[in-house]
Amino acid sequence: MHATVSPAAETLSVRPASSQDLLLFFCSVRQQTETLCLPLTPEDMMVQSCPEASPVKWHLAHTTWFFETFVLTPYLEGYRPFHPDFVWLFNSYYNSVSDQPLKKLRACFSRPSLEEIRAYRHHVDAAVERLLESSAHPEAVRRITIGVHHEQQHQELLAYDVKNAFWVNPLHAAYRSEPLAVATEAPPVRWIDFPGGLVEIGHRGEGFSFDNERPRHRHYLEPYTLASRLVTCGEYLDFMRDGGYQRPELWLSEGWETVKAQQWSAPLYWFHGDDGEWQLFTLAGAMPLAAMLATPVCHVSYFEADAFARWAGKRLPTEQEWEAAAETIPEPATGNFLESGELHPMPASSGAGLQQMYGDLWEWTASAYLGYPGFAAEPGALGEYNGKFMCNQMVLRGGSAVTPASHIRSTYRNFFSPDTRWQFAGLRLANR
Amino acid sequence: MHATVSPAAETLSVRPASSQDLLLFFCSVRQQTETLCLPLTPEDMMVQSCPEASPVKWHLAHTTWFFETFVLTPYLEGYRPFHPDFVWLFNSYYNSVSDQPLKKLRACFSRPSLEEIRAYRHHVDAAVERLLESSAHPEAVRRITIGVHHEQQHQELLAYDVKNAFWVNPLHAAYRSEPLAVATEAPPVRWIDFPGGLVEIGHRGEGFSFDNERPRHRHYLEPYTLASRLVTCGEYLDFMRDGGYQRPELWLSEGWETVKAQQWSAPLYWFHGDDGEWQLFTLAGAMPLAAMLATPVCHVSYFEADAFARWAGKRLPTEQEWEAAAETIPEPATGNFLESGELHPMPASSGAGLQQMYGDLWEWTASAYLGYPGFAAEPGALGEYNGKFMCNQMVLRGGSAVTPASHIRSTYRNFFSPDTRWQFAGLRLANR
Amino acid sequence: MHATVSPAAETLSVRPASSQDLLLFFCSVRQQTETLCLPLTPEDMMVQSCPEASPVKWHLAHTTWFFETFVLTPYLEGYRPFHPDFVWLFNSYYNSVSDQPLKKLRACFSRPSLEEIRAYRHHVDAAVERLLESSAHPEAVRRITIGVHHEQQHQELLAYDVKNAFWVNPLHAAYRSEPLAVATEAPPVRWIDFPGGLVEIGHRGEGFSFDNERPRHRHYLEPYTLASRLVTCGEYLDFMRDGGYQRPELWLSEGWETVKAQQWSAPLYWFHGDDGEWQLFTLAGAMPLAAMLATPVCHVSYFEADAFARWAGKRLPTEQEWEAAAETIPEPATGNFLESGELHPMPASSGAGLQQMYGDLWEWTASAYLGYPGFAAEPGALGEYNGKFMCNQMVLRGGSAVTPASHIRSTYRNFFSPDTRWQFAGLRLANR
Amino acid sequence: MHATVSPAAETLSVRPASSQDLLLFFCSVRQQTETLCLPLTPEDMMVQSCPEASPVKWHLAHTTWFFETFVLTPYLEGYRPFHPDFVWLFNSYYNSVSDQPLKKLRACFSRPSLEEIRAYRHHVDAAVERLLESSAHPEAVRRITIGVHHEQQHQELLAYDVKNAFWVNPLHAAYRSEPLAVATEAPPVRWIDFPGGLVEIGHRGEGFSFDNERPRHRHYLEPYTLASRLVTCGEYLDFMRDGGYQRPELWLSEGWETVKAQQWSAPLYWFHGDDGEWQLFTLAGAMPLAAMLATPVCHVSYFEADAFARWAGKRLPTEQEWEAAAETIPEPATGNFLESGELHPMPASSGAGLQQMYGDLWEWTASAYLGYPGFAAEPGALGEYNGKFMCNQMVLRGGSAVTPASHIRSTYRNFFSPDTRWQFAGLRLANR
Repeated sequence: MHATVSPAAETLSVRPASSQDLLLFFCSVRQQTETLCLPLTPEDMMVQSCPEASPVKWHLAHTTWFFETFVLTPYLEGYRPFHPDFVWLFNSYYNSVSDQPLKKLRACFSRPSLEEIRAYRHHVDAAVERLLESSAHPEAVRRITIGVHHEQQHQELLAYDVKNAFWVNPLHAAYRSEPLAVATEAPPVRWIDFPGGLVEIGHRGEGFSFDNERPRHRHYLEPYTLASRLVTCGEYLDFMRDGGYQRPELWLSEGWETVKAQQWSAPLYWFHGDDGEWQLFTLAGAMPLAAMLATPVCHVSYFEADAFARWAGKRLPTEQEWEAAAETIPEPATGNFLESGELHPMPASSGAGLQQMYGDLWEWTASAYLGYPGFAAEPGALGEYNGKFMCNQMVLRGGSAVTPASHIRSTYRNFFSPDTRWQFAGLRLANR
Repeated sequence: MHATVSPAAETLSVRPASSQDLLLFFCSVRQQTETLCLPLTPEDMMVQSCPEASPVKWHLAHTTWFFETFVLTPYLEGYRPFHPDFVWLFNSYYNSVSDQPLKKLRACFSRPSLEEIRAYRHHVDAAVERLLESSAHPEAVRRITIGVHHEQQHQELLAYDVKNAFWVNPLHAAYRSEPLAVATEAPPVRWIDFPGGLVEIGHRGEGFSFDNERPRHRHYLEPYTLASRLVTCGEYLDFMRDGGYQRPELWLSEGWETVKAQQWSAPLYWFHGDDGEWQLFTLAGAMPLAAMLATPVCHVSYFEADAFARWAGKRLPTEQEWEAAAETIPEPATGNFLESGELHPMPASSGAGLQQMYGDLWEWTASAYLGYPGFAAEPGALGEYNGKFMCNQMVLRGGSAVTPASHIRSTYRNFFSPDTRWQFAGLRLANR
Repeated sequence: MHATVSPAAETLSVRPASSQDLLLFFCSVRQQTETLCLPLTPEDMMVQSCPEASPVKWHLAHTTWFFETFVLTPYLEGYRPFHPDFVWLFNSYYNSVSDQPLKKLRACFSRPSLEEIRAYRHHVDAAVERLLESSAHPEAVRRITIGVHHEQQHQELLAYDVKNAFWVNPLHAAYRSEPLAVATEAPPVRWIDFPGGLVEIGHRGEGFSFDNERPRHRHYLEPYTLASRLVTCGEYLDFMRDGGYQRPELWLSEGWETVKAQQWSAPLYWFHGDDGEWQLFTLAGAMPLAAMLATPVCHVSYFEADAFARWAGKRLPTEQEWEAAAETIPEPATGNFLESGELHPMPASSGAGLQQMYGDLWEWTASAYLGYPGFAAEPGALGEYNGKFMCNQMVLRGGSAVTPASHIRSTYRNFFSPDTRWQFAGLRLANR
Repeated sequence: MHATVSPAAETLSVRPASSQDLLLFFCSVRQQTETLCLPLTPEDMMVQSCPEASPVKWHLAHTTWFFETFVLTPYLEGYRPFHPDFVWLFNSYYNSVSDQPLKKLRACFSRPSLEEIRAYRHHVDAAVERLLESSAHPEAVRRITIGVHHEQQHQELLAYDVKNAFWVNPLHAAYRSEPLAVATEAPPVRWIDFPGGLVEIGHRGEGFSFDNERPRHRHYLEPYTLASRLVTCGEYLDFMRDGGYQRPELWLSEGWETVKAQQWSAPLYWFHGDDGEWQLFTLAGAMPLAAMLATPVCHVSYFEADAFARWAGKRLPTEQEWEAAAETIPEPATGNFLESGELHPMPASSGAGLQQMYGDLWEWTASAYLGYPGFAAEPGALGEYNGKFMCNQMVLRGGSAVTPASHIRSTYRNFFSPDTRWQFAGLRLANR
């Protein structure tokens, strides 16, 4: 069972405007998280298979902790925490709130049980609903909105983490029961020109945004050219066959060190089947690469994206180039998001204009993740949400096949360390 | 509910003499493993909280794999493995059989589910019973016997691993529901002389033994003196208060490096409660140290045992001294084993003679774990059982409060690396 | 003996315009390297005291290797390499040229001896001089120019590495024989406004520049304000006394992890003297911090610079803000460079306008080190010089007290990983 | 120049009987150390190329420190330490004396210079001579004797460390100027029987011994059989060609982990020459393996020695078996020691009886390094000399081609961790 949400949510436009809307948004996102867990057993929800990942049960608890800590305790009169230990047990990284258990301990939290975590969720859900049904303090409303978006981020992380957990287990279980469709042909790349100039970057202020998307500010761009679609597995295979992983001149210095240390020779989740041919492990199980050549190449690090671009004689776009281009797409933008149920990037369509800007895969950009001019972190502990990671991370744009549709927008800045590969990330080329 | 086995099994004498006896032994040990799991949830059985440990679910599967691999496949005609992947998935370290998954991956085996593992157990149980009810090949009988003792070893490991899992989880759950009795007074140590001379060491050949207990051979001992009982928490606290963990001259060089690197300042599972006083974490939950001063000090490494002995102006006995002394105890020897349900070492009784030689705690000896003169490993893959660990390990003797009573004997050689502490280990002094 | 060069070189203006000028520049820089070694013994030149450092003898050889590899072998007819093994032995990181020995092996190169390295230098010097005295190929001339600037970079690294070597040795030798002057009072900070707007960034093309300074391009800046001088030791001590190293909310996430892992509680080279008071270790030996409060705080990482700025309610400038401000300073810019012989940052003067922009200390900026729009690396192996490091590094500007004066310019981009401290780096604040 | 000592010292018998003899012994050993340094430059003496090694300059200083600390300061009235910092700077591991610099810092001690260290040596030499020429306290005499033997141990370590330093340097310099003689044929192995029984082990008490050789005690041995000579390179090559490094069943578990982690495929110092054939690096430079097949295989770990023995269907002898056999050799025993100037193990002679028991190579035994029954460490800080290493080490017997002849005896116990290979170690087989 993988049809996880209602089709109505597949565009970018659904965002709450009123307290009532927010309550609906809150309930649907909270429900979505539980729906995502339907194919999983309580044991599956214990697994933490790489340092980047957390157990699904922890995601269930931490997203709940967020509402309890930042909304209910300060803004719901008479609210009592569900359990005194949960206050710090499910803190991820908010030093201003409390100490936290080491991340790697999360795999040891057999207690509280899944049932207790579910009771925790219901306890908190009821309280938030109570709060929203009365006239909640505007700051509470604002924080609930952040909390819902926060939970959507964890829905996406949950998909990453389940994929890795099922990959690491030699039995290679499938999360989605139906196999993926064969996809061997993609439309040719077209090169689309943009004029650049003094553009405006960052969120306009209507609707929700994170602090790292603000303030809107001017940025000067030279004219530039973007590929109409993402790089495909077939194209990436050409890079590999041309010695891509053996030629240091194609790589950043730190990338080359990583290739050698990690013995990388292909993207994550590519493996040789019993017949010696490349296979792709997906959330729908393993597929022969030959059947997937037209799908975008996925689970590459920044280092690999950058090396591919250098090999191709191109480059990665900056985040400002990406955003300025994305703003030319007529609303409502659509894409292959979590709600499509594919849970994997699909081949580009042959239509005109930019394809695959939203959904399918996060696109690595050539931009380091830093504060915009005039950036100010959220006040208080929520200021730890984004700002403290502004170092040694690269920006990715556009969302992926496991991003909830209502979570993404043109100004949205995702970020990961350049050596990470477990997230759904690919690349689009820019012309020099 | 923690009274886990029938009282009849509390002495050392119960060992199978016939095929029928073996079947009874097999069934009771297999059942015992399941009984030990009663206080645990499926999620508890997923946890692997330190490099030494394995998830309980893995123990359930691996002990079953042992029978399938070494008994059923070669000796039960027409036997089909329960699942083709289990053949290597639950191999621990037998390179001659197959490759194995990395040990740390065991925490990622959410699949197969606990239910499947239980079905695996029943499938294998039925097949072994079938085999034993017919006239089984003598080698099959011999291997089933090894397999039952192997499973008893994993019962003990299961207790270590659950204790560590519940310790690492900040909620500090208790495995045993009733708290431990207060124990603050131990009888004074008496020093008991042994004449030494040319003694015989090793298993006589009647009943079961592991290859590492053989062959029986002569060994010359100078006269020696042993303490009548184990070192207590109270005595160990004196060592700590005398700067035991701050004085390099008391430690082996590698021990001192470990103290500094691991920042050891007390045995494992000692911690400061909210009142600032020492607490002990046990399988029955936390207890104030003040209430446990008469119990043997537990979860010390060889390095700590050795440093304590040096501080006390004594030494640890050799394994030959221990064995020669143990052989003076009239049979049937009794002790505080798994079946007592205490799951923790208890104070010595005030009787005459050697106390606590069996049960309570494994006793670190001054002997490195090496092959006896003329040692020959089991033939085939079972030769990997013991022999390949004969390096950088120290011998422990006598069993512990989580050792099944029918598993131990005077010639039994346990072994651990000198820096390990998660096992139930303590020490008895010898006089210089 | 530390007066290492002629006073004439203390301004930024000295750059070669002709082949004859280049020969003079080449000779003076090559001589300067040797002069810097005068206070060192052959044994001193063997030390490699941290992963960032290289032995001085290696610097002597590698800078020579650069000329031999990139200039003499391709452009001097009939040139024979001094020694066939040196071709790869002294390669630093140019994968396109050859494999390289692991960096940490450099400390094992007792052979070739210092005398052989000196002979190597003279052999190469004579050949370069021969080449420049004839009509050298323009590309050879261009590469010699790069090689001279390359050697100046290694002069600076040599100073870092000697300082660290003398620091790590418990005898704490001084490189400079005369002690530093006492400096306890600095002029108050003034805040200087800049209009921003659409500015031009990058090298204009006259005179030498590295590829990473090009191409000159437009960049939009909001109006901004810079501090007139660097942050002092006294000001940094206030940060420390206000719990700077104990308050996670002041730090980037990765910075805070580093503080804990490295147990940082002060800048590098601060230590407690026998009297319990802070001391600074300098190239002129140890000084009481109390005597140095007005000097700029030195040997801080990006993480510390960023945390200090957050504590102060300010921020670090971007590299574009820095460069646009630097271009307002009338030429010839002066500063406390290597040639002053101080070998340590000195207090700011009380003059109007920006102080300490050049020399004293490299200034951490808030900018990640990335390619400028339209950036193209040098062709061939020299393309590995800068471009392959454009990841996980931050930009520093302005040169330091151990930078040769003729090496620096307003567009010069230095870069280091945000956790490094052995370089001469400090910070200037920008106002939000 | 490698003829390092007078031929008279090539037997085991030279040991001091009087104060005058001791003075001569002291002077000759101190001189020997300096002679060993003749082929080295001051830069060579700075190198520390593996964690086991120390720079030669440090050996020169530390052996001197030993006399100053343990003899001169307590027993020579009015003695003043040469330099106040040397008291802790050159302490190796005596926690009872002072703290010590981290071992890896030794490579950073460019200061004090070699000249200062030489002056330190002369200062201490003169003081020890003064002390011995008067009527020295018996304890001073005893400690000088220990100090001389200590210095001989460091002479041997110096040879190990120089060999490794010259190996790690890609130039592969030779310490000994003359190449080794070709040696392709060894006499066949003969198997020599020993009766065993209740033997006496340990030092008799006449002449010098270390505390770990005492007390002499009884030990029971079954009858056993030893090979007449060491295993050769040719025989080891057979093991390699039979898949020795690819077959886990031949290895101890920890050995197999080490093989995989270190990617061992041959002994240390074996490498493939440009012609693809095996070469041996020796202190006399590289030699084709084909020319050395009859020499004993050298620089193998305990793990390799043990795996070879298992492959050969034999085993390693215990240290007691070795000692009891060695005592059957008529005195004065001779061998290929440091004084032969070969600096490498030579082929066995074809004589009757045990060959190569002394000199050539340290022989790994199957015995863990533990205290003998009744062992008592030296009192005071000298008690740290041996006793604190009695854990996770295996015993080696017999001395090597870089052991001074007067240093060895039948009861001498050397010990190393089972994974070390930089020492001159090989193996002799025992029959099961």
